Amino acid sequence: MSAQVSVIMGSQSDLPVMQEALDVLKELGVEAEVNIVSAHRTPEIMFDFAKNAHEKGIKVIIAGAGGAAHLPGMVASMSPLPVIGVPVKSRNSIDGWDSVLSILQMPSGVPVATVALDGAKNAGILAAQIIGSHVPEVLQNIIDYKEGLKAKVIASREKLNS
Amino acid sequence: MSAQVSVIMGSQSDLPVMQEALDVLKELGVEAEVNIVSAHRTPEIMFDFAKNAHEKGIKVIIAGAGGAAHLPGMVASMSPLPVIGVPVKSRNSIDGWDSVLSILQMPSGVPVATVALDGAKNAGILAAQIIGSHVPEVLQNIIDYKEGLKAKVIASREKLNS
Amino acid sequence: MSAQVSVIMGSQSDLPVMQEALDVLKELGVEAEVNIVSAHRTPEIMFDFAKNAHEKGIKVIIAGAGGAAHLPGMVASMSPLPVIGVPVKSRNSIDGWDSVLSILQMPSGVPVATVALDGAKNAGILAAQIIGSHVPEVLQNIIDYKEGLKAKVIASREKLNS
Amino acid sequence: MSAQVSVIMGSQSDLPVMQEALDVLKELGVEAEVNIVSAHRTPEIMFDFAKNAHEKGIKVIIAGAGGAAHLPGMVASMSPLPVIGVPVKSRNSIDGWDSVLSILQMPSGVPVATVALDGAKNAGILAAQIIGSHVPEVLQNIIDYKEGLKAKVIASREKLNS
Amino acid sequence: MSAQVSVIMGSQSDLPVMQEALDVLKELGVEAEVNIVSAHRTPEIMFDFAKNAHEKGIKVIIAGAGGAAHLPGMVASMSPLPVIGVPVKSRNSIDGWDSVLSILQMPSGVPVATVALDGAKNAGILAAQIIGSHVPEVLQNIIDYKEGLKAKVIASREKLNS
Amino acid sequence: MSAQVSVIMGSQSDLPVMQEALDVLKELGVEAEVNIVSAHRTPEIMFDFAKNAHEKGIKVIIAGAGGAAHLPGMVASMSPLPVIGVPVKSRNSIDGWDSVLSILQMPSGVPVATVALDGAKNAGILAAQIIGSHVPEVLQNIIDYKEGLKAKVIASREKLNS
Amino acid sequence: MSAQVSVIMGSQSDLPVMQEALDVLKELGVEAEVNIVSAHRTPEIMFDFAKNAHEKGIKVIIAGAGGAAHLPGMVASMSPLPVIGVPVKSRNSIDGWDSVLSILQMPSGVPVATVALDGAKNAGILAAQIIGSHVPEVLQNIIDYKEGLKAKVIASREKLNS
Amino acid sequence: MSAQVSVIMGSQSDLPVMQEALDVLKELGVEAEVNIVSAHRTPEIMFDFAKNAHEKGIKVIIAGAGGAAHLPGMVASMSPLPVIGVPVKSRNSIDGWDSVLSILQMPSGVPVATVALDGAKNAGILAAQIIGSHVPEVLQNIIDYKEGLKAKVIASREKLNS
Repeated sequence: MSAQVSVIMGSQSDLPVMQEALDVLKELGVEAEVNIVSAHRTPEIMFDFAKNAHEKGIKVIIAGAGGAAHLPGMVASMSPLPVIGVPVKSRNSIDGWDSVLSILQMPSGVPVATVALDGAKNAGILAAQIIGSHVPEVLQNIIDYKEGLKAKVIASREKLNS
Repeated sequence: MSAQVSVIMGSQSDLPVMQEALDVLKELGVEAEVNIVSAHRTPEIMFDFAKNAHEKGIKVIIAGAGGAAHLPGMVASMSPLPVIGVPVKSRNSIDGWDSVLSILQMPSGVPVATVALDGAKNAGILAAQIIGSHVPEVLQNIIDYKEGLKAKVIASREKLNS
Repeated sequence: MSAQVSVIMGSQSDLPVMQEALDVLKELGVEAEVNIVSAHRTPEIMFDFAKNAHEKGIKVIIAGAGGAAHLPGMVASMSPLPVIGVPVKSRNSIDGWDSVLSILQMPSGVPVATVALDGAKNAGILAAQIIGSHVPEVLQNIIDYKEGLKAKVIASREKLNS
Repeated sequence: MSAQVSVIMGSQSDLPVMQEALDVLKELGVEAEVNIVSAHRTPEIMFDFAKNAHEKGIKVIIAGAGGAAHLPGMVASMSPLPVIGVPVKSRNSIDGWDSVLSILQMPSGVPVATVALDGAKNAGILAAQIIGSHVPEVLQNIIDYKEGLKAKVIASREKLNS
Repeated sequence: MSAQVSVIMGSQSDLPVMQEALDVLKELGVEAEVNIVSAHRTPEIMFDFAKNAHEKGIKVIIAGAGGAAHLPGMVASMSPLPVIGVPVKSRNSIDGWDSVLSILQMPSGVPVATVALDGAKNAGILAAQIIGSHVPEVLQNIIDYKEGLKAKVIASREKLNS
Repeated sequence: MSAQVSVIMGSQSDLPVMQEALDVLKELGVEAEVNIVSAHRTPEIMFDFAKNAHEKGIKVIIAGAGGAAHLPGMVASMSPLPVIGVPVKSRNSIDGWDSVLSILQMPSGVPVATVALDGAKNAGILAAQIIGSHVPEVLQNIIDYKEGLKAKVIASREKLNS
Repeated sequence: MSAQVSVIMGSQSDLPVMQEALDVLKELGVEAEVNIVSAHRTPEIMFDFAKNAHEKGIKVIIAGAGGAAHLPGMVASMSPLPVIGVPVKSRNSIDGWDSVLSILQMPSGVPVATVALDGAKNAGILAAQIIGSHVPEVLQNIIDYKEGLKAKVIASREKLNS
Repeated sequence: MSAQVSVIMGSQSDLPVMQEALDVLKELGVEAEVNIVSAHRTPEIMFDFAKNAHEKGIKVIIAGAGGAAHLPGMVASMSPLPVIGVPVKSRNSIDGWDSVLSILQMPSGVPVATVALDGAKNAGILAAQIIGSHVPEVLQNIIDYKEGLKAKVIASREKLNS
């Protein structure tokens, strides 16, 4: 099966954060690919990627970046696919506000589905939910995953009051 | 055809903002329904809605709310569908920051696809992109829509330099 | 004597912060119970809890949560009891602002009595004050507690100038 | 019946905001009194008020103030009663942040139950909930009030889809 | 003489702000051109523009944009010329913070010379200073311009104390 | 000679910050006293202090506090003397914003001379400048102190370029 | 009698705000002068002013400025007198934060006594308090002024409860 | 060859940050000089420097400072050259916001080309771009530098997918 979700990031230093998206996608049974695509250092590669992703079977793009984070928005400007943006709290970020605002506040016509600061895991789950909205097995995996979350809380309740 | 996108909001006063989502969904050929569901005033209705939406053919939920905006996150906690959150800059909001942060900063496991402050139009486009990732005609509508955005900028360029 | 204050939190990781509420309630002679109730992972348990707490002799609810913190507000939406919210500065919080705003900025009709960031001790004292407003012995405990705070400052004054 | 809730504010200019607390308390069947008490201009009056309120049958104090808002916290320092603070977005406030932070971020030992910016209505409801935690008729009024909120949303749902 | 400064903006709605750059450049004797180039709606036009500007005699680029403002940074990523960014406080901007941070906080290797919010006039002066650093007549115009500013303050001093 | 400046703080934990004020006052030849006065835990001691300081030869009051910092403003409300406020970045402060805003944003009629976050040294210098505005020897000490600052920069210039 | 307080501002547009300082100084019996001194447009005039003010009998300087507000800090760097800074919320200021932070956060060694945003009246009172710390008649005027503030609150109390 | 870029900073403690500007200028073949110039401690040296830099062959000034950072703006007020400002996140800065806003938000007429917080490397590149806009060899160095950035990303792509 070829990849349905493409996970990209602006720099190798974003990988520890973005790995969580890859891990949860695997857990939810969704095939994913990963690559480094820098809006500011490899704009041509970004253009190629964004213009062609939907032709190669990709259904959802996850893009992580920090500071003045232009990668998610620029990919969204050139792809018809849903783009999920992960604001990364990079080293020189001002407490993450720059990452959040430069991904979230996209102009009318070009949405980016933004998740929490460093929220790559949630980006992976959201991508799976998008796949799942049309693929029943993935939808079932999401339902099971949520049951698992619930079970963990219930276990911690029991432990607390034992 | 039954609705594929459900647009909900916490209060009737959010309707002028949220109407933009409905309008653009229509323009993009996606069937939508609309309703008022208050997390804080009708929690039981919200529970019913969130637990059953995916059984009724809904593929994507768009939820708008302002201030301490709990509707998108609570619906996301109970539905396996992708939930798009629209932070509304309501009357008593502190410049919109409360609306943005209480929708965006969801805990691990329960994502909300957040768009810009008052960005209901982008929520509608994003919902159509999610449908379009699996429905070729809708994908084509998205591609055409983006061409239309481009054409408008090109027209304004010509006007400016004429 | 059965519990008069119920202390709940969204995750076991909030326990070190929330323990301070339990400790000060004990010191002030108020019976309390504690549990984990996650708005986003166990919404049904939260519903049950919130709808029934006032029937079981609970007089005040203290709810702690971080990030997009929906637990205090959702419990307040379903319980007629006073709900005290403790914004927890959790690991992925943006400096605590998300926790504070998503608890404080509740819409008209559904108040949450919000205390300072990580202010679980103050939440406990406030709960005791609420009990004390109708129970003279607890009121006296509050008065004595405040005398104790004063005595400590006076001792530190003497030490500084000795 | 003598007043059970005392509503105070730092300046007559806060009255339009604070009136909402008085109105909802009346609606909820709770007797209230109102006065102007300035922490910065009449500190002696504030001292007298704070030290004696609990001796006169007052059960809850609601204090509204804006800017560097010291009234709620100073009253809380001298009264054993629960004090609800209303941050008022006064004319020279920096978007309300000063009002919110100088009421919310009280030190350990001296809580103020803070509500939303300009949230005087919620302060009134919260005060009634505190009374209601020990007075069954008031508790019932709260339950009925919440039913009324629900009914309004349901009516707006019907209107929207009619 | 051909244009030495190119002034671009993301949308025609930015023109009233950006016109101030054009006016002051004219006043300082620097030839300028103007155009609309949208990073998100006409990315191909932006690419063409950014890659070729330095080949056509342009010495400095001024780019204005609002919200998640990617135009200045993306142009800077593809042009070796100095790029001046003007954060525009557009209609849906969160008080201008998004515009400022998404232009200012560029990653290492790709600077944007950011001026104040809506500071298009200063962008024009800065562009002239860059030209002036190598063209004596323009440097002299800058010196004269600053003398003019001084003269206006001195006149207002005399008026105030007359 | 009796003390001309009184340095007070809300808690012993503020002493490491506030000690800098005492040290620089000594260096500038101004007699100072120090004490702990808590607005929230010892309000009566604060009242006594504030009402009488000007009768005992005190010329300037320096008050440091953190979080919802009411000490400087409350002392200013009861003393005719100039009060300098030092916002302390205490343990539970939200990055210092609460300390700054609750000291700076005093209402019309009751100023507090606010210095930078944790700026106790500057508070000491400012107090000396206030004394120096009427006492020539202290004014001279200030002038000499500033010469010393200059000399240190000049020395570091020489070191850098040697 | 010659002026004891010098009120300066960066631009004539600051005069409506700064006039309140002049008015209250007059009311408190302190002689003041006023002038426009721009740090950025007339730096030489600012230098002359700052270096010589203390030689001409000036005891306190009040400086108002907005945006990147350098006037108060630069005057403080060159004068041994106490300098009071008034952050003005000028037209292009980002909600006043730039004005506040660029006046308040002075480095160690060079304090500016900062008052609230647009708090020129408080700057005037503070200047009078500084004079009053050494001049008994002015101290008495301050005491009387505070009595007047109290009387107004007491009058509004009586009106509210009549 | 004499220096074309002058790098100054307010304090020796800024040197570790500012060194990156010097290093990248060297790499890009641009001659630079460095010095410490404090706006607040050595204003006369700053005046001399700013007024004469353009007479000595300097083409661009880079100025770094933190907190209430006045050095870049004051130098810009007295020099006709382009001034690049580097906001330094110094020890007592409030998360860098003070540094950023007091450099960025310059009034109309006196621009400072502001780069990211602690973005000294980008300041160096920007200075080289300004030189390069008129000096072909330096322009070529910039083009080569950008190719180098691209090559590094491409290498990290290959490594990730090998």
